Amino acid sequence: MTEDTRMSLTTTASSTIVAPTQFMQGRNETYAYRRFGHGAGRPLLCLQHFTGTLDNWDPAVTDPLASGREVILFGSAGVGRSTGTVPPTVTGMAAHALGFLDSLGVDNCDVLGFSLGGMVAQQMARDRPSIVRRMILVGTAPRGGEDIMHLDKPTLARHLGDPTLKGYAVLQKIFFASTPSSQAAGSAFIERLAQRTDDLDTAPGREVASAQMAAFREWEQATGTRFGDLKGIHQPTLVVNGLHDELIPVSNSYRLAESLPNAVLLAYPDSGHGSIFQFHESFARQAAAFLASDAPFAPY
Amino acid sequence: MTEDTRMSLTTTASSTIVAPTQFMQGRNETYAYRRFGHGAGRPLLCLQHFTGTLDNWDPAVTDPLASGREVILFGSAGVGRSTGTVPPTVTGMAAHALGFLDSLGVDNCDVLGFSLGGMVAQQMARDRPSIVRRMILVGTAPRGGEDIMHLDKPTLARHLGDPTLKGYAVLQKIFFASTPSSQAAGSAFIERLAQRTDDLDTAPGREVASAQMAAFREWEQATGTRFGDLKGIHQPTLVVNGLHDELIPVSNSYRLAESLPNAVLLAYPDSGHGSIFQFHESFARQAAAFLASDAPFAPY
Repeated sequence: MTEDTRMSLTTTASSTIVAPTQFMQGRNETYAYRRFGHGAGRPLLCLQHFTGTLDNWDPAVTDPLASGREVILFGSAGVGRSTGTVPPTVTGMAAHALGFLDSLGVDNCDVLGFSLGGMVAQQMARDRPSIVRRMILVGTAPRGGEDIMHLDKPTLARHLGDPTLKGYAVLQKIFFASTPSSQAAGSAFIERLAQRTDDLDTAPGREVASAQMAAFREWEQATGTRFGDLKGIHQPTLVVNGLHDELIPVSNSYRLAESLPNAVLLAYPDSGHGSIFQFHESFARQAAAFLASDAPFAPY
Repeated sequence: MTEDTRMSLTTTASSTIVAPTQFMQGRNETYAYRRFGHGAGRPLLCLQHFTGTLDNWDPAVTDPLASGREVILFGSAGVGRSTGTVPPTVTGMAAHALGFLDSLGVDNCDVLGFSLGGMVAQQMARDRPSIVRRMILVGTAPRGGEDIMHLDKPTLARHLGDPTLKGYAVLQKIFFASTPSSQAAGSAFIERLAQRTDDLDTAPGREVASAQMAAFREWEQATGTRFGDLKGIHQPTLVVNGLHDELIPVSNSYRLAESLPNAVLLAYPDSGHGSIFQFHESFARQAAAFLASDAPFAPY
């Protein structure tokens, strides 16, 4: 990206790279968010991953989607510059997201939930079905899922404990597969994230990671019949994952798609947790086609 | 479809419903086939399911694909009006398909393999990699797969042994899920098959079913490391299945996509073995997008 292009994006503010951070006073907290793009589609609420902030959205994914609708990147309580503390349950996070939409005056939208954000999206659809039109659940798991974010696994711990890996370099290792092609895609991904240089979010501290990790452990506990709660989510849903995800294995996406009554499953090769960043052109095309549909069924 | 439309299709012969059956003299056998459509894409070889003939291709699937390329429906040895006997192994069937393409002068094509046909497609890609550009594997299983076409399972046997179900009515029961929506799609599917009324194939006898069933049993046996043989298939591949397939469970598609180095997985809700007939509009769109790609990787 050249300097000139950046100027023009600043003018329109229609890119993940330059969209200004805004603040919405909710009932109890002030939420940081970014909102950009336009088009005939419903607004797309984007819910972020473990310890991710507004700065962790890949412009190669969210910019193309912003050409057909408003994209709303949401900072939940206690994350980045949003006030409050991170709830230790997904249900608590869903309550914040619903309260934020209420404050914003959005009573129906599409939701893209990535990883932890995908769990929050499921909970929102259960707690307030009317507010969710279509959902995209990426690299995530149903309640009662398996092997969710166990960072002490050797395959993950060796990168997380590697003192030579700084900042986003850790993301490249754990979000992408170990193949040269996936690692190259990971390198391009972190270069894209680094394109945003102003108006950055606050880096999350240990208390964010700790509360979100507690939420993962709680989410692993099934309530009632395992996956039975998914039967009540009727929204057309697109479930997406990398076939070699170490953080939240793809088996969780299989269970999601099998148990949700109305979900298409799309899984990508040669990729891990960050599959949609690796295959951003494909994902943006698929997601746009899915969101463009008004059919009562998920296939698009 | 009105009579007038049918006349115009007869004139162009560009539909599954009216394409004339042709015969190709191979080295040892004469193969029945149908060839129609045109466009810039590679020819698409279509390989049929257990006891299926040329008449079992759904025009709602193969007609849209014929608008971008030639579609070639292949009758393997011993099936329909092709001469010879059905080999009791997938490898034997792959040899017939390769010999047919040789006789036709096709040295590179795309392949759509459904169920048994998907196994034959995999074997072709292993035995002659140069002849396959891209593959679509629908409702099928890798060598060493599980629960492949066990027709004595109660969920299947109750339909197969039901004397009140005649002809295609059995297909409606076993290719589609038990939900009203899936059964309605099944009913529409068999109505579409019935649109072809002339130049029909010979119905397969018991010896066809028996040899093909032997091929399934042989295919269930892994050779060497389970699924290890898939690592050598580098063609971009699209793996498709219904999430509730009783004939060849979707777990086989999971294993295919996980073990092939270059495969996208697409799975449909509320559907069984016949998912692509139920969601024919979606499948035709997805398949066309996949086949239109020249990328070295499968995501499209």
